[in-house]
Amino acid sequence: MTSDEKILSGDEVAKHNTRESCWIIVHGKVYDVTDFLDDHPGGSRIILKYAGKDATEEYDPIHPPDAITRNLHPSKHLGKIDPHSVKKVVKEITAEEKERQLRVENRPPLTECLNLHDFEAIARSVMSEKAWAYYSSAADDEITHRENHAAYHRIWFRPRVLRNMTNVDFSATILGQKSTMPIYITATALGKLGHPDGELNLTRAAGKYGLIQMIPTLASCAFDDLVDAAQPGQPQFLQLYVNKNREIVKSFVQHAEERGIKGLFITVDAPQLGRREKDMRQNFEDIGSAVQQKAGDEVVRDQGAARAISTFIDPGLDWKDITWFKTITKMPIILKGIQTWEDAVMAAEAGVAGIVLSNHGGRQLEFARSGIEVLVEVVGALKERNLFPNPNFEIYVDGGVRRATDVLKAIASGATAVGIGRPFLYAYSAYGQPGVERALQILRDELEMNMRLLGAQTLKDVVPSMVDARSITAHTTAVPEDRLYGSNYEGLQSAHIKEIKSKL
Amino acid sequence: MTSDEKILSGDEVAKHNTRESCWIIVHGKVYDVTDFLDDHPGGSRIILKYAGKDATEEYDPIHPPDAITRNLHPSKHLGKIDPHSVKKVVKEITAEEKERQLRVENRPPLTECLNLHDFEAIARSVMSEKAWAYYSSAADDEITHRENHAAYHRIWFRPRVLRNMTNVDFSATILGQKSTMPIYITATALGKLGHPDGELNLTRAAGKYGLIQMIPTLASCAFDDLVDAAQPGQPQFLQLYVNKNREIVKSFVQHAEERGIKGLFITVDAPQLGRREKDMRQNFEDIGSAVQQKAGDEVVRDQGAARAISTFIDPGLDWKDITWFKTITKMPIILKGIQTWEDAVMAAEAGVAGIVLSNHGGRQLEFARSGIEVLVEVVGALKERNLFPNPNFEIYVDGGVRRATDVLKAIASGATAVGIGRPFLYAYSAYGQPGVERALQILRDELEMNMRLLGAQTLKDVVPSMVDARSITAHTTAVPEDRLYGSNYEGLQSAHIKEIKSKL
Amino acid sequence: MTSDEKILSGDEVAKHNTRESCWIIVHGKVYDVTDFLDDHPGGSRIILKYAGKDATEEYDPIHPPDAITRNLHPSKHLGKIDPHSVKKVVKEITAEEKERQLRVENRPPLTECLNLHDFEAIARSVMSEKAWAYYSSAADDEITHRENHAAYHRIWFRPRVLRNMTNVDFSATILGQKSTMPIYITATALGKLGHPDGELNLTRAAGKYGLIQMIPTLASCAFDDLVDAAQPGQPQFLQLYVNKNREIVKSFVQHAEERGIKGLFITVDAPQLGRREKDMRQNFEDIGSAVQQKAGDEVVRDQGAARAISTFIDPGLDWKDITWFKTITKMPIILKGIQTWEDAVMAAEAGVAGIVLSNHGGRQLEFARSGIEVLVEVVGALKERNLFPNPNFEIYVDGGVRRATDVLKAIASGATAVGIGRPFLYAYSAYGQPGVERALQILRDELEMNMRLLGAQTLKDVVPSMVDARSITAHTTAVPEDRLYGSNYEGLQSAHIKEIKSKL
Amino acid sequence: MTSDEKILSGDEVAKHNTRESCWIIVHGKVYDVTDFLDDHPGGSRIILKYAGKDATEEYDPIHPPDAITRNLHPSKHLGKIDPHSVKKVVKEITAEEKERQLRVENRPPLTECLNLHDFEAIARSVMSEKAWAYYSSAADDEITHRENHAAYHRIWFRPRVLRNMTNVDFSATILGQKSTMPIYITATALGKLGHPDGELNLTRAAGKYGLIQMIPTLASCAFDDLVDAAQPGQPQFLQLYVNKNREIVKSFVQHAEERGIKGLFITVDAPQLGRREKDMRQNFEDIGSAVQQKAGDEVVRDQGAARAISTFIDPGLDWKDITWFKTITKMPIILKGIQTWEDAVMAAEAGVAGIVLSNHGGRQLEFARSGIEVLVEVVGALKERNLFPNPNFEIYVDGGVRRATDVLKAIASGATAVGIGRPFLYAYSAYGQPGVERALQILRDELEMNMRLLGAQTLKDVVPSMVDARSITAHTTAVPEDRLYGSNYEGLQSAHIKEIKSKL
Repeated sequence: MTSDEKILSGDEVAKHNTRESCWIIVHGKVYDVTDFLDDHPGGSRIILKYAGKDATEEYDPIHPPDAITRNLHPSKHLGKIDPHSVKKVVKEITAEEKERQLRVENRPPLTECLNLHDFEAIARSVMSEKAWAYYSSAADDEITHRENHAAYHRIWFRPRVLRNMTNVDFSATILGQKSTMPIYITATALGKLGHPDGELNLTRAAGKYGLIQMIPTLASCAFDDLVDAAQPGQPQFLQLYVNKNREIVKSFVQHAEERGIKGLFITVDAPQLGRREKDMRQNFEDIGSAVQQKAGDEVVRDQGAARAISTFIDPGLDWKDITWFKTITKMPIILKGIQTWEDAVMAAEAGVAGIVLSNHGGRQLEFARSGIEVLVEVVGALKERNLFPNPNFEIYVDGGVRRATDVLKAIASGATAVGIGRPFLYAYSAYGQPGVERALQILRDELEMNMRLLGAQTLKDVVPSMVDARSITAHTTAVPEDRLYGSNYEGLQSAHIKEIKSKL
Repeated sequence: MTSDEKILSGDEVAKHNTRESCWIIVHGKVYDVTDFLDDHPGGSRIILKYAGKDATEEYDPIHPPDAITRNLHPSKHLGKIDPHSVKKVVKEITAEEKERQLRVENRPPLTECLNLHDFEAIARSVMSEKAWAYYSSAADDEITHRENHAAYHRIWFRPRVLRNMTNVDFSATILGQKSTMPIYITATALGKLGHPDGELNLTRAAGKYGLIQMIPTLASCAFDDLVDAAQPGQPQFLQLYVNKNREIVKSFVQHAEERGIKGLFITVDAPQLGRREKDMRQNFEDIGSAVQQKAGDEVVRDQGAARAISTFIDPGLDWKDITWFKTITKMPIILKGIQTWEDAVMAAEAGVAGIVLSNHGGRQLEFARSGIEVLVEVVGALKERNLFPNPNFEIYVDGGVRRATDVLKAIASGATAVGIGRPFLYAYSAYGQPGVERALQILRDELEMNMRLLGAQTLKDVVPSMVDARSITAHTTAVPEDRLYGSNYEGLQSAHIKEIKSKL
Repeated sequence: MTSDEKILSGDEVAKHNTRESCWIIVHGKVYDVTDFLDDHPGGSRIILKYAGKDATEEYDPIHPPDAITRNLHPSKHLGKIDPHSVKKVVKEITAEEKERQLRVENRPPLTECLNLHDFEAIARSVMSEKAWAYYSSAADDEITHRENHAAYHRIWFRPRVLRNMTNVDFSATILGQKSTMPIYITATALGKLGHPDGELNLTRAAGKYGLIQMIPTLASCAFDDLVDAAQPGQPQFLQLYVNKNREIVKSFVQHAEERGIKGLFITVDAPQLGRREKDMRQNFEDIGSAVQQKAGDEVVRDQGAARAISTFIDPGLDWKDITWFKTITKMPIILKGIQTWEDAVMAAEAGVAGIVLSNHGGRQLEFARSGIEVLVEVVGALKERNLFPNPNFEIYVDGGVRRATDVLKAIASGATAVGIGRPFLYAYSAYGQPGVERALQILRDELEMNMRLLGAQTLKDVVPSMVDARSITAHTTAVPEDRLYGSNYEGLQSAHIKEIKSKL
Repeated sequence: MTSDEKILSGDEVAKHNTRESCWIIVHGKVYDVTDFLDDHPGGSRIILKYAGKDATEEYDPIHPPDAITRNLHPSKHLGKIDPHSVKKVVKEITAEEKERQLRVENRPPLTECLNLHDFEAIARSVMSEKAWAYYSSAADDEITHRENHAAYHRIWFRPRVLRNMTNVDFSATILGQKSTMPIYITATALGKLGHPDGELNLTRAAGKYGLIQMIPTLASCAFDDLVDAAQPGQPQFLQLYVNKNREIVKSFVQHAEERGIKGLFITVDAPQLGRREKDMRQNFEDIGSAVQQKAGDEVVRDQGAARAISTFIDPGLDWKDITWFKTITKMPIILKGIQTWEDAVMAAEAGVAGIVLSNHGGRQLEFARSGIEVLVEVVGALKERNLFPNPNFEIYVDGGVRRATDVLKAIASGATAVGIGRPFLYAYSAYGQPGVERALQILRDELEMNMRLLGAQTLKDVVPSMVDARSITAHTTAVPEDRLYGSNYEGLQSAHIKEIKSKL
């Protein structure tokens, strides 16, 4: 009889509720995590909170389903729990949570979401603070995060007129795969924080709308579940954080290839995952406030979700590894996170299938330039070296995209497609899968209209002369305001309606 | 006896109040619109609201008077209504509407409107929300709309002094027609939304002040009524959206020429009319809020007024059509909506009489550059090709003009005249025809003074060296602010009056 | 017996209180202004308010003392009023006025004014609204007015170190006259609006601090009173608006020369005085609100104080007049209001003694560039033509100066001295003559320190390489903000003090 | 018996409480300061407040401990006070002070400080207003102060990827001394204003974290106490304001060298200490408000703490003195406050060991460019002259640094190390020494992560091509806003949660 066959009672488990002996229940199984406490990337405190209890609800959105079995020696898998013997942890519903649920009930109908911003506005209202903090946070002062969007505003269109725009076609081919739009759903972690179905929302909506989803290494859903959820012929990509243990990497990559993954996007901008202070600060609100630490206490800091889940990533990843990857898979390899023309040229010369110009959604290095700015630099440098255009080397950008105009600016500047991440997370956090579908429909509508207004029948017609990107490298700050002068200046008043006296 | 002679009673009409049999009354006539319901560009819902009833009041500001007869087969024209037999739809006056009417009563005297901004301020207070949303809305995030005005601020004057400015003359010749100012009233749709007299306000004020009005295809008033309202010798232009049915186009254009129209402005920047979200969102407030749609419902969206009225426009319009137009009319042909030097050169070579550099008031393609920015580019390119100046090819700009200084910047940069649209709509929405007249008087006063201060006796003296437009192409965004730094910084305080204690 | 010897009683005057027969009392004399009513630049309404009464208090701050005698035929000078026979117009003190007087009482001690901004802050609190509106108003949207100050912020210093700064000397020579600072008090109109002593505050403070005052044509004080108030050897300049009647001009100029005026500054940027809407709108508040005009009434508009007082100015002034001026006076002639290098070169070639680069405090042509920006252009152009430096041709700038740093930027860029206007008006409006003195002392303190920190012992050492003015021509506007994106973005929060519960 | 041995009673001292005879007690000793009253740099008023009393508490944070003995002739040292005979001045605790103390108690635990901004936020809440005003104030309108931080935002990174980042090393060598980071603690005055241990907090934390502290001339702690507090082998630098009396300078410098100081940083940007209006204005709040001065009173102004403590500084310091310094010490000499390439070249040619590019934290000359901007200019000019890189001439910058990204931008631009001042003051004002330690730990964490993300294993790998600094010289101001236009524009609204009705 393996331990898995053993049946344990809730009372027995409940006795092991201390640092000295700490058992927890996850998905109906009992684990002895006593020795693991200090190795837990998220710290021991959060585990001890569930010592002797069922931790599934807390565990789920943060961990891939197999995280616990992968990390814990089989000898610590103690057996199954007798489901009738466990007292359900009655989760107290706080006043804040009640208000949140009321907001969920009062969401406007989906038809009132007219643009991608709207999903974010609703998501911010209906998500838990923890989930919002994780999704929306970025590096340091989040300047880079906002710059990603702002950079698009420094590019303006030069639209052509009097071209027959009866039919427009904005379908794209990405790594040889068909896509109905020059857009793919890029990889983002911890999908279940926003919605219980997590990344499955994206898989299903992508299938329905003919888009390609990039499956994240740090998905909340199991990789195979996401592949299984795809429709026949629906292409998927895989984003890869490279584990220090290359054997794990190899088996994961080869498994992905077997499952039909069409492109391997290796993240190269994250030798260490970022400090995201909004996420970190949220943890204090969540946990820390009860225990007042005295000034000067030793620092025992929760580093936020990003750090908690990423300690396996290898900071030693380098160009030699790329060569190695080519020996273990036939999938096209794309480097995600290139940020200079120098590295773009190296990538092209290294024979990879493409690059993603990205600063990781502004979540890694503060003051890393936006993907769209790097795109202008990279395309210029590749052209000089006759490396662009190049049918075997595609360029993608991500970060800050909210409108079809953003997408078309990237295409005109030389990108094959654009990755969109957070907006789809917000869409399903607010409305589930229908939210993602509506977001895709909006992008479609916007693309159709903007192609017409731009004078481009197909994406091939979206050419560099259709944009003026000369201001893209301007990083300006206003001279700090002269507040005394400003406070003395009295602004002009408009003509205005006479004051209306109420009648008695 | 034709159906038109038939007299129907209100009771009879009232029975046909369903989707299965839907009759409505418009301007005293009864129409069977049952089969038309699904073809209505504005959707069936709004018609069904008036099924069996008199729809005139709702119909009028949105449709040209002959829209219904043009679109409905004569067999569906059922006859006249017996006026005594119809119960007037008693329109409930909401509290909001009462407040609006009170604001109308309390408008400041017209003399307090000192500039064009003032009309907009008053109009915003006294217009219905629906009308305001339609007039003021623009594409996507309305960045382009605001850029149109802001772009003028990047041009500064280089005024000359010690010239005899006793007499200044700012009259202009536009397509051979005299105008008292280098300004024309450009075409805008749905004029009755703001005032029951609609575009007639403009016709009459233009006559009085010696300006040229461009009559819009989508006027609320009938074309002939607007022509009839002109004074003898008062020139008018026509703006044309090209219908897919070229026969309709031909007869409309030739009719216009017969009626004495002096210029045909063919809109080339609107193969599809824009999504204007302020307009679209207003519809939800108006209608949608009662029926709570479940998330995931099929999308049945009201696309706003612009889309509702424009499905006839041909997205296939191209340069060949311009050649065709020259065969059906002798009116000067002007292309409205040119946005690059490349198309400007093509237009000059195609032998049209002029172009309007315009992004359609920011209502079409978001991030299309402002007319004034394009002007600088276009004039430069035409000069290089010896196509400018050119007595047979005039250049106009529109979008964002609020002051005579804006007008003079455009003239100095090479424009023959400037189109102004929204400000006149706001002027009559706030004050009717006298509002437009005062707006024109203000422009006149400003022009006179600014010509003097600029050192220009006539428009010929308003030369390129009078402006510094070198910053016009700079599209800058500030580096996103460092909010933590900013929140820590404590601004300086002025010296201030000591706190005054009230005496007991 | 001349009419001046006649004595009239208050009762007799009081009978002439209609449009048909309108007498007023000013400074103890009685005038029949019936025929003058329609010629009054400020309109008849304001005179009729005082028909049959003593108008002195209203008259004084707006008119030079001799305005009435100059404009009215001697036959209309009816005689002296018997002072005992006039009922004093008891001026009702409004609640607003009481509050204002309370604020005057509660001004902070003068020592708390640490910079020129402070005087403006206090003046804004203690001046009448009318006076504030006139002094602070500027053209159109007042963009130029604010740009005048902002332009200085685009110039940054390149200070030198390790120079012996024990003694610094910032005295200047202006048109051969000594000044303790490279600053003069420039001409501004209607000085009594802010303080009963009007421009005399400036004359006296200038005498005490060794500065030169430029006496305005439109002073509230009589020219001779201002000259009489000067100390022996205290130099004064005269600003001249050129009257259409050149005989008046000639006698005024020659009189000024006889009184010892050291420089004649002819204003060349004001063929017509500006529309200043803050000033105009203030009039409605003051007068117009009682009489509700119906929309559409004929326009009878009060154009504000500036227009009211300036109808005599000749818009025909040109370069030929400058030649004529040289025949009627030996005073150095300076052209005030030059705004391009072209006119600067013409001025130098015309042999005048200097130019003031100025846009008239932003009160005339909106979007005229700031004096400091024009300075950089002018000096460059003059150098190219070997016209700079030139001991017989000095360059001044005015507009927007608030700090000694501004002054030193102008000096480094090639100016001989800088004119300051509004700040001194605010200083005496807030505190009378001591206010002006303290303002001068502050400038002195700032100059001394900044000369030291800049590494310049004398003004000759304040050289062009001490400033970086390369950004001066950049007229940038930010791309209009994306408000939806901005409203979704949640700013970071600092660590903060725990909420403190009140103890029960 | 020397006077120091004399014992005086409190009653006796208390009699000397007038301007005519003024004794005070400091640190248990009695001084006769009657003749010194008018020489006190901080004015006589503040001394007279303590006439006949114990002034130690007020004296301590403002003066180095030996200030009084150095400035007062021994004959005025009257003796020791009998401690039992003095009535303790019972300091009234104001309501504001009580609230401040409550805020101190309610500081968040130190672990919640995630970045350097957080210390400033807490310090602002818990410091006395006087201390906050002195630390945070800067020159004129504090534009330069804020520009120092903003300038870093005009530099963006060009990070390299796929480099082995397993180990990163950001230790530096500064003037031959080891530092764990390319950061030193720069000199700032009056350290006890923020915390009773003053600069000792910095010495101790520096020792623990392996950083170098630059000891200020104007420390609140005695120089020797700060040296004594260093750990064995802990290097320290000295910042020097040069006294007019060179003998004092010589003995101070040679004493420092004997005590093992490793570098002499001579301040060259302060021939006169700045007017800092926030500091000056604070004094009025503190003292002046009770005595209402009449407008026009003679100016008797308190110039703020900076001026009060700095009258000894020699404005005559020049390059010859640098030569002299080399004759009196073997310590490396560094010039602190260089601001142009011209002076940088002179410094290199003068053979000093290095320069600090600095504008004195924005506290001296308003509109002096930021250190980081000057760095780009200086390195360019030195390279042209083959003076860079130069192992015998190091370049440092200070001002505006808040993040490790700022530090790395400076290193990439050519700096050897970066000075940080105010943030450490705020750290210990908020939390004492542990605050400084946590600040250093945060910088360490940020540096480690950012080195990884930048792709640099050591500081040598942080090369110029890793930054894009092309925007650094852009000093732009936005065209002043068009407020009427802005007030008319109605921003877009997001989709939003339906209003939730409360249930009755």
